[in-house]
Amino acid sequence: MTDSDTTIGQLRQLVNDFVDGRDWPQFHTPKNLAISISIEAAELMEHFQWIEPAESRAVADDAEKLAAVGEELADVVCYALAMANELGLDLSTAVADKMAKNERKYPAEEFRGRFGSDDPNPPVG
Amino acid sequence: MTDSDTTIGQLRQLVNDFVDGRDWPQFHTPKNLAISISIEAAELMEHFQWIEPAESRAVADDAEKLAAVGEELADVVCYALAMANELGLDLSTAVADKMAKNERKYPAEEFRGRFGSDDPNPPVG
Amino acid sequence: MTDSDTTIGQLRQLVNDFVDGRDWPQFHTPKNLAISISIEAAELMEHFQWIEPAESRAVADDAEKLAAVGEELADVVCYALAMANELGLDLSTAVADKMAKNERKYPAEEFRGRFGSDDPNPPVG
Amino acid sequence: MTDSDTTIGQLRQLVNDFVDGRDWPQFHTPKNLAISISIEAAELMEHFQWIEPAESRAVADDAEKLAAVGEELADVVCYALAMANELGLDLSTAVADKMAKNERKYPAEEFRGRFGSDDPNPPVG
Repeated sequence: MTDSDTTIGQLRQLVNDFVDGRDWPQFHTPKNLAISISIEAAELMEHFQWIEPAESRAVADDAEKLAAVGEELADVVCYALAMANELGLDLSTAVADKMAKNERKYPAEEFRGRFGSDDPNPPVG
Repeated sequence: MTDSDTTIGQLRQLVNDFVDGRDWPQFHTPKNLAISISIEAAELMEHFQWIEPAESRAVADDAEKLAAVGEELADVVCYALAMANELGLDLSTAVADKMAKNERKYPAEEFRGRFGSDDPNPPVG
Repeated sequence: MTDSDTTIGQLRQLVNDFVDGRDWPQFHTPKNLAISISIEAAELMEHFQWIEPAESRAVADDAEKLAAVGEELADVVCYALAMANELGLDLSTAVADKMAKNERKYPAEEFRGRFGSDDPNPPVG
Repeated sequence: MTDSDTTIGQLRQLVNDFVDGRDWPQFHTPKNLAISISIEAAELMEHFQWIEPAESRAVADDAEKLAAVGEELADVVCYALAMANELGLDLSTAVADKMAKNERKYPAEEFRGRFGSDDPNPPVG
């Protein structure tokens, strides 16, 4: 399974089979899943807690660190997939819609290399 | 773009084009991206902050609330895709590997309907 | 040291002596401290990840669980004190000011037992 | 109310009166309070999401930014105080105990200017 040939649907199915096979949907309230995404996101952040920006970029070149970070990122994504399953949400549609919204809000010509002073928290950058 | 026909690679490309087109990779240190995933995860949790478990399940039946929650979940996933791009990480492989690890750690026969008292924080459930 | 006789200042001093004594302020950028508060907040949430609301209230009656939760809450507060030290911020003033702002925004007569439909995320409740 | 003359107990009372006066304890399950601390912690992090470490230290010298950050930090602390109230937890005792534990785990002579390679996530530093 690689990113070039795996659909979101296939990954959702993988997660769904695991959860269903253990009779765990009873615990999968959207509230608990949102909490779980946050918990895993914090475990991901722990890998970068005290290091400098340049050091954090160097993780990509360290096989061991990259694997550890990849595992935490996978945890975040697994819970996001579980949430999509629980809510019957199409993730690809949601992502495409949000990126289209971002395109309109941040035209490339205006926002090249900057965020704009009126918005300190731009999307995906 | 729907989950049955969209690959992770296609979604990563969507995010990559947006970020690159605004010359924003300079801000995309893995550290900042991990922080961003956490920030969006908290915005997702806000939708469930004070409501009861049953109420949170009912979100799936409310078109307006579902759309709002879907947008926040998309934000989390967008930043996860951006992080995969930044680190050159194959997300499908990472997810499949993690789910295989979970399968071994939580055999279905042993863990049906329960987490086991020795692990209060099971994966994806 | 108990809450009735310990000032915020005394707790800030405790944290300050520990940090200074190890020559750790170099790592205490406000950014890293904000990240640390988030990480500890997630560890606190882990204790409640899958349990029902009533179960979470019962933690107060279980000495062992209460101690574990108390330790995580202390971690959150320690980093908040460290951040106040780093920024030279008077926490008591900040808290009193915020509570006064909350009083004005949420008059008791109007908001008894409810949050109001226009604000899904009220403060401290 | 300043840090040199305000006890934790006084701040807990301030929060308690506000919450009780609006009949909001019904929403204050420890689970919801832990979620709330996380949400506010993320709002605090937003102020530092894209900036460099040095820039984050400069916040202390910018009155407007410092006030904004102070307000978010107050939100985190308010919910921590609410949680102490809800669970009947003495925060000063919990903080003092945790700092004593940290002192034993990280003797100053051994850990001056470093965390030690065996622990990537030291406390309060």
